[in-house]
Amino acid sequence: MITRMSDLFLRTLRDDPADAEVPSHKLLVRAGYIRRSAPGVYAWLPLGLKVFRNVENLVRAEMDAMGAQEILLPALLPRDPYDATGRWTEYGPNLFRLKDRKGNDMLLGPTHEEIFTQLVKGEYSSYKDLPVILYQVQTKYRDEERPRAGLLRGREFVMKDSYSFDLDDDALQVSYDKHRAAYQRIFDRLGVEYVIVKATAGAMGGSRSEEFLAVCEVGEDTFVRSTESDYAANVEAVETIVPDALPIDGLPAAVSHETGDTPTIDSLVEWANATLDGEYTAADTLKNVMVKIRKPGGEWEITAIGVPGDREVDFKRLEASVEPSEVELLDESDFAKNPALVKGYIGPKGVQGAEFTYLVDPRVVDGTSWITGADEKGRHYVNLVVGRDFTPDGVIEAAQVRDGDPSPDGAGVLESAKGIEIGHIFQLGRKYTDAFELDVLGENGKPVRVTMGSYGLGVSRMVAVLAEQMHDEKGLRWPREVAPFDVHLVIANKDDAAIAGAHQLADLLDAAGLQVLLDDRKASPGVKFKDSELLGMPIVVVVGRGWANGTVEIRDRFTGEATEVAVDGAADAVVATVRG
Amino acid sequence: MITRMSDLFLRTLRDDPADAEVPSHKLLVRAGYIRRSAPGVYAWLPLGLKVFRNVENLVRAEMDAMGAQEILLPALLPRDPYDATGRWTEYGPNLFRLKDRKGNDMLLGPTHEEIFTQLVKGEYSSYKDLPVILYQVQTKYRDEERPRAGLLRGREFVMKDSYSFDLDDDALQVSYDKHRAAYQRIFDRLGVEYVIVKATAGAMGGSRSEEFLAVCEVGEDTFVRSTESDYAANVEAVETIVPDALPIDGLPAAVSHETGDTPTIDSLVEWANATLDGEYTAADTLKNVMVKIRKPGGEWEITAIGVPGDREVDFKRLEASVEPSEVELLDESDFAKNPALVKGYIGPKGVQGAEFTYLVDPRVVDGTSWITGADEKGRHYVNLVVGRDFTPDGVIEAAQVRDGDPSPDGAGVLESAKGIEIGHIFQLGRKYTDAFELDVLGENGKPVRVTMGSYGLGVSRMVAVLAEQMHDEKGLRWPREVAPFDVHLVIANKDDAAIAGAHQLADLLDAAGLQVLLDDRKASPGVKFKDSELLGMPIVVVVGRGWANGTVEIRDRFTGEATEVAVDGAADAVVATVRG
Repeated sequence: MITRMSDLFLRTLRDDPADAEVPSHKLLVRAGYIRRSAPGVYAWLPLGLKVFRNVENLVRAEMDAMGAQEILLPALLPRDPYDATGRWTEYGPNLFRLKDRKGNDMLLGPTHEEIFTQLVKGEYSSYKDLPVILYQVQTKYRDEERPRAGLLRGREFVMKDSYSFDLDDDALQVSYDKHRAAYQRIFDRLGVEYVIVKATAGAMGGSRSEEFLAVCEVGEDTFVRSTESDYAANVEAVETIVPDALPIDGLPAAVSHETGDTPTIDSLVEWANATLDGEYTAADTLKNVMVKIRKPGGEWEITAIGVPGDREVDFKRLEASVEPSEVELLDESDFAKNPALVKGYIGPKGVQGAEFTYLVDPRVVDGTSWITGADEKGRHYVNLVVGRDFTPDGVIEAAQVRDGDPSPDGAGVLESAKGIEIGHIFQLGRKYTDAFELDVLGENGKPVRVTMGSYGLGVSRMVAVLAEQMHDEKGLRWPREVAPFDVHLVIANKDDAAIAGAHQLADLLDAAGLQVLLDDRKASPGVKFKDSELLGMPIVVVVGRGWANGTVEIRDRFTGEATEVAVDGAADAVVATVRG
Repeated sequence: MITRMSDLFLRTLRDDPADAEVPSHKLLVRAGYIRRSAPGVYAWLPLGLKVFRNVENLVRAEMDAMGAQEILLPALLPRDPYDATGRWTEYGPNLFRLKDRKGNDMLLGPTHEEIFTQLVKGEYSSYKDLPVILYQVQTKYRDEERPRAGLLRGREFVMKDSYSFDLDDDALQVSYDKHRAAYQRIFDRLGVEYVIVKATAGAMGGSRSEEFLAVCEVGEDTFVRSTESDYAANVEAVETIVPDALPIDGLPAAVSHETGDTPTIDSLVEWANATLDGEYTAADTLKNVMVKIRKPGGEWEITAIGVPGDREVDFKRLEASVEPSEVELLDESDFAKNPALVKGYIGPKGVQGAEFTYLVDPRVVDGTSWITGADEKGRHYVNLVVGRDFTPDGVIEAAQVRDGDPSPDGAGVLESAKGIEIGHIFQLGRKYTDAFELDVLGENGKPVRVTMGSYGLGVSRMVAVLAEQMHDEKGLRWPREVAPFDVHLVIANKDDAAIAGAHQLADLLDAAGLQVLLDDRKASPGVKFKDSELLGMPIVVVVGRGWANGTVEIRDRFTGEATEVAVDGAADAVVATVRG
């Protein structure tokens, strides 16, 4: 097919849009691929839609190849199923809710576990029907608080979501692994640079879960990876290496000291170095952060989190650890109501004496000695020993993860990087099948509760991710698998014979099955070259000055390399380059 | 591709669903093509989705072929543009409205004139950019009061909507004609039986408009067509043939008669035949129906509609005639406030004497004589002559259209039929470009207000229309262009060699590029045959009893014809039948 730029619904922009901060957003707008309709809501213009469809079809092909079956559910959904699982409420303000003309509550689907579960329950009843994997490529809605970065975090977006239904955990693992492999094939074919990180399951519930993150500076997800192995994980999912317990015998006794005005770790360390023998750092202190935690439907309960003083509590890690409970820092009124908690001087004894729960970082093992609060203004304990002077009520992953921390797999140390979530695979287990009582009759004639997996892949987001990872300072660059056109043929010569020759060349490329974008506009070569760089087709062919000498130029948009080829055989050379 | 029914996510149902009334709805559910998610909201299961995508791609191909460019707008839209055109209000309860987390009003797009207009205004600025035709295949939302008949009238549905932007009326006519031709090609390729009817423009505004109606008993649209020409029109759009005026000279004088208790046409005709010379019918009386009409933003104004007594006022025709004004019948309180209007005895003189507007059917021409109300209880005029005794304030198309009425094109008479709207093409003119001030710089350097067309085609509805028009008493029947599979290969022989042979045949058909549905289930031949009839692939191939004699059977689902062919060469025979 040949598309003439003189006809194409396209206007490229010289300037970055005012609301765009990240390169992919700027370039997709400037190159006329997308336009904003509302915050976080975009229109696809012709070039953008082509990339989007190419990504969609590539995803579809790999889903079909793994034996998944495509269906399509509505986006406008009734409230009932989401009430059954509690997600009508749990989603909070992220859910678009509306009423129909009869006053019925409805929602715009953010993800479709409920509906798929109901559907399978409606159709299937026997173990012989399983396993089954169903998927859809569908428009989703989430009322993000801060839609940002164009397509990277939108409120209306397209996902491939699939759901596996299996008889038991082993079969679920097979479905999960199939998805994992299919996602790898998809991202490899797209040429995305990505990592697979262990993830927490978030609001989805369930046990095992991994995220596919496109490595990208502008990403919102921080992850860590080992410098020496292929270990990678979401910061929330990093498990601290637990040191061995130390012998308690022979440790000096705990002593309560008057430490003066030392409500901060810095001031406490300063006091210790000035007063005690030896050299002390923040790592020798035990910091106690007061929070309150509430189970769904429960009451707030006060809890102290004890972490080595050289680390902050990472609230996202804390939240992930207590999920589905909520967690908040204690506020002034909480402290006012609990005078046993002396701000700046809180210690394990005061916390447990007041019958609050005391959870500690996994590094706070038996036999470790700490400088920590003595629960009186201006006083701290020195040599307070775990397992002798106090026993925590449990451990919790809440301390920050730092570059240089040992990698949990024992190989190398961690370094952090930024990523964009492009896929997420979950072993949901029976959360949804329990909610809807999805059983099938087992081989032994008894009902079996089905186990589920849920697998998401961002289709519209992928367009932005590719733009983000592959662009250069001149503009977009599309891999051939998803480029809107195989070849951008630029007429940069006003000579009638050259123009006719360019059209002939376009016809030959079209006949060879290539998608050709022909710049036949009455514009200067400079304007055309700039646009070809901005638009980013992988191969640019220029019918320009060389025409007089019987040559055309083939430019590789990725390498920047330009080759002169003879007009005779130019079509073959272009085809070879494209297919190469 | 080969799809095995043992794997396919499908359950066929023996019984009609309780909520289904029309054949297409019953069969699409029974055959496992669709499932209901909420009133008027459906999920597409694998087979249904294939038909839907096939229709979509056929429509897309024809749109591309006519030079339209595909884009994709969001379904979730801001309120502002729909306020600018008044449609935020005009759509009434048919519009799904919602608020986002920040309290902004949003809507689910029912149709996208506003957004396309804004988009073109944003990108284009010169006459050189026009004409342009843009289209999308997109999910639309309308909160129908009575969603019905499955996919035929849903609340979430998929349309191809396109919009043309032209410099002047002639160019708009070209864009309009292109669409008209493309729609004809699409419906012809699909094999739909349809008519093109003149239509009123409805809430879209604008001048010229035609509807494509699939001829179908279960349709909601009544249309009329000529028995002798290809004239067809929506009932609302039928223009009455106006008779010539008659000479007034020599007509007998009007006389007011005491007619007794004669508030109905029947009782009046009875009185006339009993009292006057000659034979009278309802057609000799002039019935005056009292309504009130309100312009948008205006006050209710009382109007009388005078129609020959043998015809009712057709309220839909009346509404179409006064649009965008609203119209209602006078109620008791209106009569109470206007004692000049004597119910059952209202006549032209009373109406005009009270200074109400008096509009008449086009047949009520000068020189016609009528028996009509004399505005006193129990009294009527006889021989009240138009143009002598009263002069109407205007004419209005409001009387019912009846089978046997002369066709407006002068050829034959009208007969009515039912249809389903499958396409609608409009010359919108400048309603939307005025609202958004969409101008381009003309060739002479002066701004030109762009003129628009709007063109809709129901993609999801088409699936139901095809089911409706093509099914038989046994089940669905799909034309090859959109069938989920080319061939349904039924294994109806338990012999291992036959089963192996069927799989080999499937492989050969697959290799020939056919889409094969292979019924490899452990079910009886009877169950399989019933399912193959219900599912409706155009060609069914049976590997059955004949296998022992070296034959397989090829059945044509449309004609019912069955042919035995030799196993050797069966694949070629099937391919030839499919492609034939």
